[in-house]
Amino acid sequence: MSVKKLKDQVCVVGIGWTPFGELFLQSYEDLVAEAAHAAMRDAGVSQRQIDAAWLGTAFPDAGVYKGRAGMDLAEPLGLFDIPVTRVSNYCATAAETVRGAVNSLLAGESNVALALGVEKLRDRSPQDSIVKMMVEMGHPFYQKGFTAAGTFAMYASRHFEKYGVTREDLARISVKNHAHACLNPKAHYRREITLEQALGSPMVADPLTLMDSCPTTDGAAAVILVRTEDAKNFSGIPVYLKGLGLSVSTGWDLPFFDESYDLLSFEAAKVAARKAYQEADIDEPAQQIDLAEVHDCFSIVELLTYEDLGFCKPGNAKDLVGSGATRRDGHIPVNVSGGLLSCGHPVGATGIRMVCEVCEHLRGSAGDRQIPEARIGLTHNIGGPGAVAAVTVLGKEKS
Amino acid sequence: MSVKKLKDQVCVVGIGWTPFGELFLQSYEDLVAEAAHAAMRDAGVSQRQIDAAWLGTAFPDAGVYKGRAGMDLAEPLGLFDIPVTRVSNYCATAAETVRGAVNSLLAGESNVALALGVEKLRDRSPQDSIVKMMVEMGHPFYQKGFTAAGTFAMYASRHFEKYGVTREDLARISVKNHAHACLNPKAHYRREITLEQALGSPMVADPLTLMDSCPTTDGAAAVILVRTEDAKNFSGIPVYLKGLGLSVSTGWDLPFFDESYDLLSFEAAKVAARKAYQEADIDEPAQQIDLAEVHDCFSIVELLTYEDLGFCKPGNAKDLVGSGATRRDGHIPVNVSGGLLSCGHPVGATGIRMVCEVCEHLRGSAGDRQIPEARIGLTHNIGGPGAVAAVTVLGKEKS
Repeated sequence: MSVKKLKDQVCVVGIGWTPFGELFLQSYEDLVAEAAHAAMRDAGVSQRQIDAAWLGTAFPDAGVYKGRAGMDLAEPLGLFDIPVTRVSNYCATAAETVRGAVNSLLAGESNVALALGVEKLRDRSPQDSIVKMMVEMGHPFYQKGFTAAGTFAMYASRHFEKYGVTREDLARISVKNHAHACLNPKAHYRREITLEQALGSPMVADPLTLMDSCPTTDGAAAVILVRTEDAKNFSGIPVYLKGLGLSVSTGWDLPFFDESYDLLSFEAAKVAARKAYQEADIDEPAQQIDLAEVHDCFSIVELLTYEDLGFCKPGNAKDLVGSGATRRDGHIPVNVSGGLLSCGHPVGATGIRMVCEVCEHLRGSAGDRQIPEARIGLTHNIGGPGAVAAVTVLGKEKS
Repeated sequence: MSVKKLKDQVCVVGIGWTPFGELFLQSYEDLVAEAAHAAMRDAGVSQRQIDAAWLGTAFPDAGVYKGRAGMDLAEPLGLFDIPVTRVSNYCATAAETVRGAVNSLLAGESNVALALGVEKLRDRSPQDSIVKMMVEMGHPFYQKGFTAAGTFAMYASRHFEKYGVTREDLARISVKNHAHACLNPKAHYRREITLEQALGSPMVADPLTLMDSCPTTDGAAAVILVRTEDAKNFSGIPVYLKGLGLSVSTGWDLPFFDESYDLLSFEAAKVAARKAYQEADIDEPAQQIDLAEVHDCFSIVELLTYEDLGFCKPGNAKDLVGSGATRRDGHIPVNVSGGLLSCGHPVGATGIRMVCEVCEHLRGSAGDRQIPEARIGLTHNIGGPGAVAAVTVLGKEKS
């Protein structure tokens, strides 16, 4: 029993995403419609052509209570009489919509698939925070006090201890991504910060400061996917899906209660990357990948992801940061969009926003922030306590 | 651009489900493990062979707050380093797990797929009902007073008015399904009721009584699916997937605010059935289908589903009930398991429990409730206000 490779069989022909930010004046439905119609316009697709769709929303209960089922995508678009599926998998939720669409297209179940992620996280009072919600929902880790910041702070501390990573190394990632975001009109925050500002920002969970943490953000993103043989029928410049890996690892307990667990990397990300790289024939990621959008929910996560994705050897990520290699003008630019640290992180949308960003660069349409001659791009998400991860590899040309 | 038919390419080789009921002594994880291990034992599959899995849970917030992501399936089984996806689509949630697995197998993404649905709805105080939860969550219809019972009561009233359906017709469905359940050791309720008891039970939403309504229930169900070419490697008797349709229709508003909407049938179910029948070469459902498990969350839904699925012409469902044709000894037995009315309805599990039931009959292993010589079986789910539906057609033999 062997498993087939993707081999450029599916491509993205339409991309669309809303500005990310505090979108109090737009409803969940507004965001769905804006992202979907942008992607459809780009692809030259009418609603009637879409024959399957996926909705990614991770936290329907975070504010507007929408996104529990496919209907919350179907209804704002009038997208009826087709399968519309809601998926959720923490921060890999958006990647799951793409994966669902890819499998459907390859299975021959559909011909034109819409993958859309949306999250509205800001429609809450400050007193009624998402952390409070997670605790009240009975979240097994939040109830024990392990918030997202608290959890990833443990990884940071361990990197400090083991590899000599410093707060400055982390701050440099935040400074880099904030600088990148100035060129992205859709980022939540579009202002440069200095190393001193990053280091001096309020402590959230020692050693992670506010500037090491992504904001709470609303937004939506969408892609239209088709089989490559059909791409000529659509107006959007095709970008080919070369590899897709998604993996669940570890569980809630292992990182905290098993002393052998090293808190240095995410097994899920390494497994997902291995699968995606194998499909995409990537042997030397740092050489072959022209840009990457990675899951910098906290700066430490971007740092350790360099190692998980094989951009450098374990322990060398801080040197990669220091060298400037992951800046927009470096040899492997990471989070040219501004990343989650500046774009924000509407959970269900983030992974698709990354795919859109990579597609813009591969198409050569990324404007001021264009990475010249980008041919291969990567997206990466990690969710839960490092328990679920997704990696996609996208290419400008068919191989 | 054409869409491929399923053509027996995928089959079920393992089935397993827990007893359904008030399972206060079993955790979410216990239910996952019991159903999954039963299906794996049946298939002769070890955990290490499973290379993709889907978790169906519709209401993580209904009690134990589990089931928000694939990890809640992966962790209790130690099922790591593979993709594990959570889907939710109201009452079609379980069907979505099967569909996800089928697409993955056909796409060549996986070789041995686990589809598991689970819901724990009883871990709430009576004062903190699920209806109250839905209102508090901001559910657009529950907030307006349209509970599930209230919504389907409107369909019942309309059938009374248009087709002369009576409370007795509805009660007969409840009596039939309760009688069936006496032969199903895993049903939540296993006692016969009389027509008088059904008619005399407390009114829930006029004209629907308590006995017209399914109970609130805990449970889990699982199937192992493989490509048919690989079936010989597994110990479970294969049952072939002949058709699968899933459709989202209507939206929340149309049934209530568009006067042209007739409240007589569910467009989503008709579309899903058309797709599944087309794939399975079913032209005359009442003749070709040997048994059906349909979504009798309320008796009226089973009644109108006879028409949606083409078991009889519009308006004739009450005669089909009266004739006894849908009893276990009739020519098209419906809900031989006892249906949702007696098995209960742990939402994420129900559609898979139905697939398990149909497989038992097609394998000839349904014990006391075996339908003799069953060759073709159907499952049907409808969710939301008739907005999402799934239909599968399963067969004993390859065609």
